[in-house]
Amino acid sequence: MIPFNKPYKSGKELLFIEDAIQRGKISGNGYYTMACHEFFEARYGFNKCLLTTSCTDALEMAAILINIGPGDEVIMPSFTFVSTANAFVLRGAKIVFTDSMEDHPNMDESLIESLITEKTKAIIVVHYAGMACDMTSIMRIANQHDIFVVEDAAQAVDSFHIDENGIRRPLGGMGHLGAMSFHETKNIISGEGGMLIINDERFIERAEIIWEKGTNRSSFFRGEVDKYGWVDIGSSFLMSELNAAYLFAQLLELEVIQKIRIEQFLEYQGFFKARSDLKTPNIPHHATLNGHMFFLLAGSLKERTEILNDLRELGLHAVFHYLSLHRSPVQSMNHDGRALVNSDRYTDQLFRLPIYPELPYSKVRKILEGYFN
Amino acid sequence: MIPFNKPYKSGKELLFIEDAIQRGKISGNGYYTMACHEFFEARYGFNKCLLTTSCTDALEMAAILINIGPGDEVIMPSFTFVSTANAFVLRGAKIVFTDSMEDHPNMDESLIESLITEKTKAIIVVHYAGMACDMTSIMRIANQHDIFVVEDAAQAVDSFHIDENGIRRPLGGMGHLGAMSFHETKNIISGEGGMLIINDERFIERAEIIWEKGTNRSSFFRGEVDKYGWVDIGSSFLMSELNAAYLFAQLLELEVIQKIRIEQFLEYQGFFKARSDLKTPNIPHHATLNGHMFFLLAGSLKERTEILNDLRELGLHAVFHYLSLHRSPVQSMNHDGRALVNSDRYTDQLFRLPIYPELPYSKVRKILEGYFN
Repeated sequence: MIPFNKPYKSGKELLFIEDAIQRGKISGNGYYTMACHEFFEARYGFNKCLLTTSCTDALEMAAILINIGPGDEVIMPSFTFVSTANAFVLRGAKIVFTDSMEDHPNMDESLIESLITEKTKAIIVVHYAGMACDMTSIMRIANQHDIFVVEDAAQAVDSFHIDENGIRRPLGGMGHLGAMSFHETKNIISGEGGMLIINDERFIERAEIIWEKGTNRSSFFRGEVDKYGWVDIGSSFLMSELNAAYLFAQLLELEVIQKIRIEQFLEYQGFFKARSDLKTPNIPHHATLNGHMFFLLAGSLKERTEILNDLRELGLHAVFHYLSLHRSPVQSMNHDGRALVNSDRYTDQLFRLPIYPELPYSKVRKILEGYFN
Repeated sequence: MIPFNKPYKSGKELLFIEDAIQRGKISGNGYYTMACHEFFEARYGFNKCLLTTSCTDALEMAAILINIGPGDEVIMPSFTFVSTANAFVLRGAKIVFTDSMEDHPNMDESLIESLITEKTKAIIVVHYAGMACDMTSIMRIANQHDIFVVEDAAQAVDSFHIDENGIRRPLGGMGHLGAMSFHETKNIISGEGGMLIINDERFIERAEIIWEKGTNRSSFFRGEVDKYGWVDIGSSFLMSELNAAYLFAQLLELEVIQKIRIEQFLEYQGFFKARSDLKTPNIPHHATLNGHMFFLLAGSLKERTEILNDLRELGLHAVFHYLSLHRSPVQSMNHDGRALVNSDRYTDQLFRLPIYPELPYSKVRKILEGYFN
């Protein structure tokens, strides 16, 4: 059986973890955390990065930073992982779900403006499969209405948005805040883990406080205050050095990993474009590829179920994902009744094929050739 | 310089981490997570355990489980770490701080009843230095008023409460819910990490859901539902297998670690009892020792500052901790004005000496003998 995912190993992870242990600090905010922060800040020009225990937690930090409270509304796609919504529901927000595009799971930016009310505090953008949403339009709408943009860039490491002038900006680096995931299912991993990206520098000082359990511990260690105490709400958001060491080993191999994954994506795409019965991903013109995910659309839920079962019998583990959040038991009562047909279509018809550096692609190809002919 | 803390290494940590990586699963809820759960459930008879990214997060799970919402009141000591309060403030609770005992930093249970109102939802017990609060009295009060008890057992691994009939119960195992820490400063460590202990079985099913980001993923993997979705609020509370593997290596050495730490505690205690100028810990009659922390009281803030500076010059790193939370910038406006004199006294006068397996005790002893004579 070819598994759906296999966490990448560069070979240096254990060495770096051993070094972290030798350094005598395996809690957070140590040598490897700083090394990872510096890597991201230098490579992508992110203003400030903070490693977290998960992308979920980075989104929770974002919700705290923009002061989400009961009654506030946030707009986000319905076709996304539960954490996109949970992080804001935990702070009391009302989620206003919007539909995906007809030809891509990303949110349809043309629907956003009609959903904005006086209570709207933020738009949560999800770059599905690491492919950019239309950030030019979304940032313009947000700025016009003076609301925040948080980029859920969970899947979007090393991917870019290209604007009409050809300027490339890294995903996670355009909204006021961004969140990335290093869960073992992602391109670059730390086990469980994530990162908050702080683009708007008004948030930097408070972000450090919230990250450190609501204390001014960072100021204390910089000698700015003589003892540290409880100054704000917060949580234990720090990633352990064990995970940061693992992550740093992966970051050193980033280009190798990305190259292989993008090649696999293009292989899949070429294969399926030559066979017309399944819809292949439409890559938005403002998006680059990061090879995070290859997805297809079956003609119906029934067809998808058959395909997944058949492939599994042939030794290939393919999966579907996301159930429209506006129809979930926890949120359906709060939804205003708008039909989100594209979101529901992806819920029923989208599925994903394995994509990771150790994937035996020639075996996969043989299975696919036998099945889709 | 003798450091205040040195994270313990059993020698097997790296081996187990390597094994976790080889098993191909470094996200949460894998082999080592289950091994740790089984260890705690078997050794202490805990009903159900769930490893979390921190003790803070375990407390946040507890706050969600008992449905803390705006307006609810929770009673807790003021002399504690910020996370005890943060976890409940994040859910909207009003914190009602209570004083410590005259002869111990633990909360004074005789003050609790007068603080209970119709809005009181829970008492948060903190077993300071791993020494039991009077759980017989506290559980009786809680049961009479039908409110929950959450044990913040961050420091309390392998420590017990002994009731009037001589029955020993593990700390964290008596309240409706308990939370433990495996931060590198604790006896048994995972880097960053913690654990929720679910004693009241009404909470077990929902705890698994909240732990898995508000999804019924655990039911899905047990075959109880055919797909999993968003059914409740939640977060990404799972500890990575890298940390769980580290933790499991430590658990296998638990008895060795505890023995050394308790010996060090008793050495310190013997040393200072023979010198009458500093107050040594008064161990409550219902408490056992777990050697987590050795603390002393100076006569004043000025004296404490002198002692800590002098010891540092002599090569020994001793530290103070906790600033009364009711006087913190974030909560002082909400406090009702009651004077919490014991909490403030510990804030000014309490300090801690290093205690950990690798501590060179004979060197420490020489420094102490030269200084306190």
